[in-house]
Amino acid sequence: MSPGSDFDKLYEDMERSHVKPLWTAEAKILPTSPHPRAVPWLWKWSQVHSLASRAGDLVTIEHGGDRRAISLANPGLGGQPYATPTLWAAIQWLNGREVEPAHRHTAQAVRFMLEGKGAYSTVQGDKIYLERGDFAINPPWFWHDHGSESSGPAVWMDGLDIPLNNYLDASFFETSRNEKQDVTAVIDGSLLKYGCGQLRPAWEEPVQEYSPLSTYKWEATERALTNLAKVDASPFDDVALEYTNPHTGRPVMDTITAWIQMLRPGIHTRAHRQVNSAVYHVFEGKGATVIGGVRFDWEQGDMFVIPSWAYHEHINGSKSDRAILFSIQDTPVLKALGKYREEALAANNGHQAVKESFDAAKALAFV
Amino acid sequence: MSPGSDFDKLYEDMERSHVKPLWTAEAKILPTSPHPRAVPWLWKWSQVHSLASRAGDLVTIEHGGDRRAISLANPGLGGQPYATPTLWAAIQWLNGREVEPAHRHTAQAVRFMLEGKGAYSTVQGDKIYLERGDFAINPPWFWHDHGSESSGPAVWMDGLDIPLNNYLDASFFETSRNEKQDVTAVIDGSLLKYGCGQLRPAWEEPVQEYSPLSTYKWEATERALTNLAKVDASPFDDVALEYTNPHTGRPVMDTITAWIQMLRPGIHTRAHRQVNSAVYHVFEGKGATVIGGVRFDWEQGDMFVIPSWAYHEHINGSKSDRAILFSIQDTPVLKALGKYREEALAANNGHQAVKESFDAAKALAFV
Amino acid sequence: MSPGSDFDKLYEDMERSHVKPLWTAEAKILPTSPHPRAVPWLWKWSQVHSLASRAGDLVTIEHGGDRRAISLANPGLGGQPYATPTLWAAIQWLNGREVEPAHRHTAQAVRFMLEGKGAYSTVQGDKIYLERGDFAINPPWFWHDHGSESSGPAVWMDGLDIPLNNYLDASFFETSRNEKQDVTAVIDGSLLKYGCGQLRPAWEEPVQEYSPLSTYKWEATERALTNLAKVDASPFDDVALEYTNPHTGRPVMDTITAWIQMLRPGIHTRAHRQVNSAVYHVFEGKGATVIGGVRFDWEQGDMFVIPSWAYHEHINGSKSDRAILFSIQDTPVLKALGKYREEALAANNGHQAVKESFDAAKALAFV
Amino acid sequence: MSPGSDFDKLYEDMERSHVKPLWTAEAKILPTSPHPRAVPWLWKWSQVHSLASRAGDLVTIEHGGDRRAISLANPGLGGQPYATPTLWAAIQWLNGREVEPAHRHTAQAVRFMLEGKGAYSTVQGDKIYLERGDFAINPPWFWHDHGSESSGPAVWMDGLDIPLNNYLDASFFETSRNEKQDVTAVIDGSLLKYGCGQLRPAWEEPVQEYSPLSTYKWEATERALTNLAKVDASPFDDVALEYTNPHTGRPVMDTITAWIQMLRPGIHTRAHRQVNSAVYHVFEGKGATVIGGVRFDWEQGDMFVIPSWAYHEHINGSKSDRAILFSIQDTPVLKALGKYREEALAANNGHQAVKESFDAAKALAFV
Repeated sequence: MSPGSDFDKLYEDMERSHVKPLWTAEAKILPTSPHPRAVPWLWKWSQVHSLASRAGDLVTIEHGGDRRAISLANPGLGGQPYATPTLWAAIQWLNGREVEPAHRHTAQAVRFMLEGKGAYSTVQGDKIYLERGDFAINPPWFWHDHGSESSGPAVWMDGLDIPLNNYLDASFFETSRNEKQDVTAVIDGSLLKYGCGQLRPAWEEPVQEYSPLSTYKWEATERALTNLAKVDASPFDDVALEYTNPHTGRPVMDTITAWIQMLRPGIHTRAHRQVNSAVYHVFEGKGATVIGGVRFDWEQGDMFVIPSWAYHEHINGSKSDRAILFSIQDTPVLKALGKYREEALAANNGHQAVKESFDAAKALAFV
Repeated sequence: MSPGSDFDKLYEDMERSHVKPLWTAEAKILPTSPHPRAVPWLWKWSQVHSLASRAGDLVTIEHGGDRRAISLANPGLGGQPYATPTLWAAIQWLNGREVEPAHRHTAQAVRFMLEGKGAYSTVQGDKIYLERGDFAINPPWFWHDHGSESSGPAVWMDGLDIPLNNYLDASFFETSRNEKQDVTAVIDGSLLKYGCGQLRPAWEEPVQEYSPLSTYKWEATERALTNLAKVDASPFDDVALEYTNPHTGRPVMDTITAWIQMLRPGIHTRAHRQVNSAVYHVFEGKGATVIGGVRFDWEQGDMFVIPSWAYHEHINGSKSDRAILFSIQDTPVLKALGKYREEALAANNGHQAVKESFDAAKALAFV
Repeated sequence: MSPGSDFDKLYEDMERSHVKPLWTAEAKILPTSPHPRAVPWLWKWSQVHSLASRAGDLVTIEHGGDRRAISLANPGLGGQPYATPTLWAAIQWLNGREVEPAHRHTAQAVRFMLEGKGAYSTVQGDKIYLERGDFAINPPWFWHDHGSESSGPAVWMDGLDIPLNNYLDASFFETSRNEKQDVTAVIDGSLLKYGCGQLRPAWEEPVQEYSPLSTYKWEATERALTNLAKVDASPFDDVALEYTNPHTGRPVMDTITAWIQMLRPGIHTRAHRQVNSAVYHVFEGKGATVIGGVRFDWEQGDMFVIPSWAYHEHINGSKSDRAILFSIQDTPVLKALGKYREEALAANNGHQAVKESFDAAKALAFV
Repeated sequence: MSPGSDFDKLYEDMERSHVKPLWTAEAKILPTSPHPRAVPWLWKWSQVHSLASRAGDLVTIEHGGDRRAISLANPGLGGQPYATPTLWAAIQWLNGREVEPAHRHTAQAVRFMLEGKGAYSTVQGDKIYLERGDFAINPPWFWHDHGSESSGPAVWMDGLDIPLNNYLDASFFETSRNEKQDVTAVIDGSLLKYGCGQLRPAWEEPVQEYSPLSTYKWEATERALTNLAKVDASPFDDVALEYTNPHTGRPVMDTITAWIQMLRPGIHTRAHRQVNSAVYHVFEGKGATVIGGVRFDWEQGDMFVIPSWAYHEHINGSKSDRAILFSIQDTPVLKALGKYREEALAANNGHQAVKESFDAAKALAFV
């Protein structure tokens, strides 16, 4: 009998016993550096907004489960409705006077408001009004319902850790018997109580598990960006701020952090890469991001994904106007688990060689 | 020989050998509850201000060491220039156009601005302008110099842990060769960079050891008080906020925390007591604090001390105007060392029986 | 045109734009409780050992990559060589006098020694000898090589977070130019220096990122189990100890914790379940574990998996002999990310109704 | 009127108003480096032991309060019964069959056993037996009673933070109605449950506030010293181990840490100094410590104090025998409050110039 057939017999017996040899799989499961399945991608706002609007016309909340959200599906992830392996990102569309009933889940959630007037969220009895640029959080297992008190639609971006939550087999979900929660606090109570991050109600212990501040108003955020720009900036991300829990200084969620970034006119940042994944929304302006040597041109509303360990650099194409990027990132996961790394591009003055511009149709051929 | 004389001989021999029996001292050194040497006391602003002003006329900065500060000397502490066993509290007076030269020390320091225009502090190269109600910090071993760019005087309250620092034999002090530091940051740089407590420069690790925010402006503080009053308050301290390091949520210093408190019109809080000591400054309003059964009436500018484990409750005498109290407290010390306790007064609906009103002249008889 | 066709058109356009409606997927991606793909499973030692032994005969280290390991492949995970979604668990077989060359990886690793004499591991220059029952760790990115200095084989269990590391796109791997590292410390240096968990070299800061103790000897472990049994036990896990980093009290790795459990003679524990997954190895004894209502009978050497949120209870079938279970668990991941939950079974005095005994052949039909 | 008299008048008015000018006191209260009142000192065991023994004959427990302890009184501290500003250190003498009744206090306490058989401590219901070299802790506010079950005396060293506790006005003390506590745990329960520092009962959360391990047996401590000596040592403290809470890796108390140090035969360490104070007990051997240029010769049983910021180096005078030093230190206080510093002596190959040998009689002249 040839040695080959002994091997074959061994592998057959292994298969039957539900064990696998490491040596035939080592290069695949212990790669020398990350090989993400998720690909860099960009979704045009014109398309996404139009699809959300059409869903607003066609789909009632009942049809739409209890949320009318459409999520980014990274073409590298085999048809799953996920933007990156850990992050679910969606646009949610609420028609005027609509109410989305109360539910809760262990998935951790953040919201970034894009359009509309008179929209509110009630999170664990705390009702807050959200306007364009407001950032809001939804700690795990907190009841929340949304509604509109105006006649027009409200549109926002949702970021949840649904993929991670499912990967870890940690999903719990519950629908409330009551469509709307009782509002138990003064309107905008969290904002009034915790809205000045450096002053804390003196009789309370700091809140550790989640940010006690449920809403970060655009007005304060914009002022912070403007002020920071007078003093300092990152060579890689320009004027970049991370939303934090003011009671701990840590990210607002255990699994998701959120950034707001201003690219000053004409800025072209240096490239770097991290072990983490991110979903960006272009809140304002026009420019481009080079990811893994491919140039992704963007304008207001567009959304794009940067996968793990891909070099990226940002360009504000305008010489006169700022660009503003909002993003969600899974960095807290990587850091908590001892897996975060980052690296600046050394060559070529920190800029990637650009091979091509992103074209969704062509790109798909390679997925 | 009587047993007594054996005892006497033993005690004599102990004395000679520099050892002490516990049993003769146990009640004194292991008391059943705290017996602070520091006493509750109140200093009238009219007196303190007048003394500081006279020092402004008489004492030049050179004469005045490098700071023209006059400190509260708690009558219980045997003539030491300390407000409580751990806290040094002073009024500092700077004449127009004066400069206080750069020095640094391991004592931890906070400042609360009371009067004047055009006063600045430069702390480790970061120059900040301070106006009435602004709160500023000075981390240990940071160079700092102060000056006035206007013609009038500037007056502020200083809070330092000098007594603690000396008790622990931990004092280091150094005078700079340069009277004024080079200003290495944009003016008000710390404020611009860290002034929105819930948004942090995304590329920096949180600052752990001290608050990166060097100044807390009165405008934001007052807004925070007003907002908090719409939502919540403490039964013991009414609308009370603690200044915190936004990067950690912890007090601004390892040894000193600072509070700003608004007593709403007509408020009479319930009494409680803590293992800690505090020095109060009346920033605004007119009222009283009952400490250990003695009523201390106060008005704007007055300063008073609450020693450890003394019951205290606050009264805003006005039915129409708010009162505002600023205070420094050594609570972080007690908490870090596992020694903090607090207790609400249960009897009499939480109010102390008032035995008398404080009268400095009479009180001294008992010190 | 029917509403249906508008819907169809919308869904087609969504598909083309790489977005997905939430409402058609909500039940699947936001389930009311975890639905793990991984299944409870048991591998018989007789089979695994025989396969490893045959690999020892057939596969040289060069053929076997640099490690001769065969890993458990959970039948629920679609052919992936993973025991649970986060954990890779394998039996490694080293022939006498063999050397496995030095490499390093970001995957976090633990080892539990099962058979053999004279086997050593050199981890970042620290050479340690391992005998049956010894537990060893391999912090991320630490160089390590293994070898045998005797003529007989050495066999151990490996536990790594390879699946998690790949899921997070965080894998880095490097082969050393030198087959064997230089041994830079005294033999068993880590053990000598850190082996008494409650006494720390006084001049060093505690090691935070990983356990400075690289090996936990069986002798000390067994004594700890025996001692604990005299005092206390868990109703769910009986005499259970967690290996910890003595410098922090935390698990030995950021992503993996390890337990050693003694089931006293005749013990039948109560059932509970957690959001986490675990791989068990039967180090000693004979008994059974009921997982999700199915009884898994085990004896020495067998390995089994408990997926997330499955009720489980342990039975030591012997009235006279102890049973000892070693396990690796991903609990630190769940806790770090705010996702850990646990629940005791209330009904039936804490015991599950047993529906059947595990039979690998029959069970497969349901995978 | 001369300027002088204006000054005089100002100072008089300040005095009357209980405020003090900084400028006349600045050099004193803000010294350029620590000027401890506590002095380096050494107590001979022959004297201390003899005094304790005489107290054992003369003083009954009732006379002796509830503890027959004699404490070191640092001659620099003005007659207070304290070894350093923060530490109280004493020798406690228990006659055979005596019982010291249960009490509790907020002072934090450690014990180091020196002589005797059959002595026990019951700490919060956990009864432990102590023999020579055993180290035990007494967390704040835990009930404790001591007793002897043999006919001979038991002698140990006590270390408490009584001075600090009083300085902070944080002392609470309570006597139990019952002379002896009920023993609620298995004898030596803490030792059996937590005695292997790197293995923790898996179902419990780590104990944060104090070490769950109440006793550290000499046998394990000695083995740890012997093992460490094979691997590593500090140039300043030779083979030095810190007792730690195995659940956190931190010192056993918030305010006191304890060290055990082996000076190998012939060792002469290099000098360094720290902002902290320490009390040493010579457990074994003969040698000397140079403190601030003065040589303190010691032999078994002697005790000595190193004040803050004094250079010190240790000498084991024997070429053949080890010396062992036990010490308590207030380092955790300094570190928690941001006040710790240390510095190695650079000059003279790290050794101080020795000016003289300590002579208690002569030294007193300078106190």
